[in-house]
Amino acid sequence: MNKEIIKIFDTTLRDGEQSPGASMNTEEKIQIAVQLERLGVDIIESGFAAASPGDFDAISRIAQRVTNSTICSLARAKDSDVKAAGEAIAAAKMRRIHTFIATSSIHMEHKLKMTPDEVIKRAVRAVEYARTFVDDVEFSCEDAGRSDISFMKEIVDAVIEAGASTINLPDTVGYRLPSEIGAMVKEMSEYTHNRAIISVHNHNDLGLAVANSLESVMNGARQVECTINGLGERAGNAALEEIVMAIKTRSDIFGGYTTNINTKEIYPASRLIANITGIEPQPNKAIVGKNAFAHESGIHQDGMLKNKDTYEIISPADIGLDMEDTLVLGKHSGRAAFKDKLGKLGFEVDEEALNTAFERFKEFADKKKEIYDDDIRALMTSQMTRVAKAYELVSLQLMDCSNGVPSSAVTIRHDGIETTDAGIGDGTMDAIFKTIDRITGYQGRLIEYKVTSVSKGKDALANVTTKVTFNDNQPAMIGHGLSPDTMMASARAYIGALNSYLSMEGMLRLRHADSGETI
Amino acid sequence: MNKEIIKIFDTTLRDGEQSPGASMNTEEKIQIAVQLERLGVDIIESGFAAASPGDFDAISRIAQRVTNSTICSLARAKDSDVKAAGEAIAAAKMRRIHTFIATSSIHMEHKLKMTPDEVIKRAVRAVEYARTFVDDVEFSCEDAGRSDISFMKEIVDAVIEAGASTINLPDTVGYRLPSEIGAMVKEMSEYTHNRAIISVHNHNDLGLAVANSLESVMNGARQVECTINGLGERAGNAALEEIVMAIKTRSDIFGGYTTNINTKEIYPASRLIANITGIEPQPNKAIVGKNAFAHESGIHQDGMLKNKDTYEIISPADIGLDMEDTLVLGKHSGRAAFKDKLGKLGFEVDEEALNTAFERFKEFADKKKEIYDDDIRALMTSQMTRVAKAYELVSLQLMDCSNGVPSSAVTIRHDGIETTDAGIGDGTMDAIFKTIDRITGYQGRLIEYKVTSVSKGKDALANVTTKVTFNDNQPAMIGHGLSPDTMMASARAYIGALNSYLSMEGMLRLRHADSGETI
Repeated sequence: MNKEIIKIFDTTLRDGEQSPGASMNTEEKIQIAVQLERLGVDIIESGFAAASPGDFDAISRIAQRVTNSTICSLARAKDSDVKAAGEAIAAAKMRRIHTFIATSSIHMEHKLKMTPDEVIKRAVRAVEYARTFVDDVEFSCEDAGRSDISFMKEIVDAVIEAGASTINLPDTVGYRLPSEIGAMVKEMSEYTHNRAIISVHNHNDLGLAVANSLESVMNGARQVECTINGLGERAGNAALEEIVMAIKTRSDIFGGYTTNINTKEIYPASRLIANITGIEPQPNKAIVGKNAFAHESGIHQDGMLKNKDTYEIISPADIGLDMEDTLVLGKHSGRAAFKDKLGKLGFEVDEEALNTAFERFKEFADKKKEIYDDDIRALMTSQMTRVAKAYELVSLQLMDCSNGVPSSAVTIRHDGIETTDAGIGDGTMDAIFKTIDRITGYQGRLIEYKVTSVSKGKDALANVTTKVTFNDNQPAMIGHGLSPDTMMASARAYIGALNSYLSMEGMLRLRHADSGETI
Repeated sequence: MNKEIIKIFDTTLRDGEQSPGASMNTEEKIQIAVQLERLGVDIIESGFAAASPGDFDAISRIAQRVTNSTICSLARAKDSDVKAAGEAIAAAKMRRIHTFIATSSIHMEHKLKMTPDEVIKRAVRAVEYARTFVDDVEFSCEDAGRSDISFMKEIVDAVIEAGASTINLPDTVGYRLPSEIGAMVKEMSEYTHNRAIISVHNHNDLGLAVANSLESVMNGARQVECTINGLGERAGNAALEEIVMAIKTRSDIFGGYTTNINTKEIYPASRLIANITGIEPQPNKAIVGKNAFAHESGIHQDGMLKNKDTYEIISPADIGLDMEDTLVLGKHSGRAAFKDKLGKLGFEVDEEALNTAFERFKEFADKKKEIYDDDIRALMTSQMTRVAKAYELVSLQLMDCSNGVPSSAVTIRHDGIETTDAGIGDGTMDAIFKTIDRITGYQGRLIEYKVTSVSKGKDALANVTTKVTFNDNQPAMIGHGLSPDTMMASARAYIGALNSYLSMEGMLRLRHADSGETI
């Protein structure tokens, strides 16, 4: 049987990155795009080119790098946005401009302050102008979930006529139930028939984004917009991994449909994005949560041993999670074994990167008896997404004593010069961060601090994520630190946030402050 | 219009506690039960009495404490289980026994190794025996989602005849789509008609637990089983907060139904359970995630200011999240202001507890300029759930130096005697934990280590969660530490896990190792 392809449109780099605390630097975005390509995503929405020079730069570099997925930029229905999008994706082998305008009364009246006729005109102009840059144009009716369906038919007729080939119907506020979304998609896909592909973009405010997406597929949607780990504004978007695995696992129901996703790249993609954003899926997250496979509880010992199917509907191997072979390497492992492991985990490195990684691996292995796959993933992610190091931690001393004053001495290298100074604080971390501020001259404000152990044991690698603002007019930057020593990892994370800030300075902005628009 | 009540059956303390890493001590379970009662939960499944003396003890104490919710214990369909359940809940004002047996071919053949007739006999016997303890008996067809519907009708006829008044249809492996669950519920509820209430219990393996629960309500279910934060085996259960808020928010669709839930207690319940289990909902979790309300992004500054309804379908106040008034108290706040705040946050404390809490508050306020609602919540939770302190941290010194050997000196009080010793480690935490092991004589194995900042700022309270095993035949224990100093918080958390272990020793077990049964 010829199966119909459901296109997977991933917006982790656009809607996902818009979620508070998920901003990424350019290197990080490129690594994610490469992994999305490997995952088999059809369209990668790689940013919002007009939003900032930083976004524009990241999209252009992704466009140069990725060849097997279509590269897309979001653009409001205005010439300047469309032009920025067209230019940012120009180098891509396959490219798409995704333009949008709100079609619900509440948004047209209160936000756009435009009449429906004006909205149609703006939409048509945006699509026509976008077609001067690319052949592949997607148009979204922002807040479709609350839009009048006859008005949507009118605007959709107009934009298809103007050259849009994909029509997206976002449930922007995550308000709709599956039956409602299904009915809307059915009516719109029957109406547009072969003139355009109907796409959906569901938000998860009521916990229904995945159900709404699946119901849409049943009713004629042939593209689904989603994100890895369900990242996105507020309660996030539909989770790519849940949609794809539901379609695959329930092929008895979705037999006529398939996706181009290589499901074995789901777990690596999920880890990469969790490591970069510091936003860890909760353990009880479907498919990619740490507890998603019942390998820790007593059940495993009985029902599962008798017959896996009693409790397991998906095999961990299907998503690229190797439950057996997670114990990798120890301090006596050689370079060849390490390189081999990197290959198995999907990291392609040149000789120089391999040398750096192997050195760090040996440093870790010296302190940590056993190194697991997830340790290697965290190590490689931190190495591959490092920005040019303006400041580098050389050494750290710390004295802490309950009822005493925590103090630290830190040495930092900058422009080849090492500076050492000491400082005190209200706690150990506070002492370290204040000393770093004193040396660098930047005053950071810590917004979030998080430590997770990457794998198991007292000597586990500490993965520290800090979110720091260095300028109240610009978004907080994320920094990561990885070390068997929590203090070292914390200092590295704080300095990492500063380096990210310095590399992105002037390329950042508070998103959409001028319009409040999004889908 | 007279609305039909959808009963909310919360199983956070049973299915939720079964999730790896969520085991709780008795004090913690009692605090959760009290909050569930305040939330207005109809039935609290408070454990599995036969599973261990620890479970039995917790259920009995909850039964004595809670008066406004029905207290329920799970029991396999065997006399010893039913007896334990009946005895554990005996003191409750309203009580229910929930017994179950698998009804799917795969479970009957491979796990139970019983014929369908034997299964019916066992079920009937269990229900009849349960009725000798209580009037209110619930029966579950384990793995109903994969059971033959005509066999289910047969067994359901028999157990209703035997005295069951609630019939639960769990999708034990989380395999079904909403349309399938809806059809099953419709057929079963039409079949049982007024003879019993139909209940559902949906697992989230494909991310569809909430959608499946709502579809069930549409098709005749009048009880929904769920957990706070969607905790539970593997990918968890349907999230109580999502189901309740969907029914409430979409009253245009669910107009005929309502729940007894006081939604303003949702956020406090979510925080309490996150603080106790250390399992934090991901930021993009619907309803209770940190990002669920769009208060951080640029959007807030425009669309939201123009008209809240453009992006917000639920007001934070509806779930008891006070966005405006989170800044509470500082070091100059007095006892009266502090007491007042506790009352507003729903903590009822006697004079002694107030004194202890106020002392700790002053200690924090000394180091931390601003104290937020969530800080107070974390403080009170850690105080109210503390077990008898076998070991108590007196003081801590720490020396750490990159390329040096981290060392610590720790003083611990036990039975009135203070012991001090020093130790080294491969990292700072390792040094602290190893020194604690040396003093106490217990060898802990660290399974998980996590730090989150409770609120904002470099001087935020560090909330450390450790998961430690002290005996390979018993589950890992969770310990929490709260302090402005991460090191102190870590030491407290590790010692907390040891104290929990000692208080529960002999009352723990590896769950269901003998049967692999669950629903």
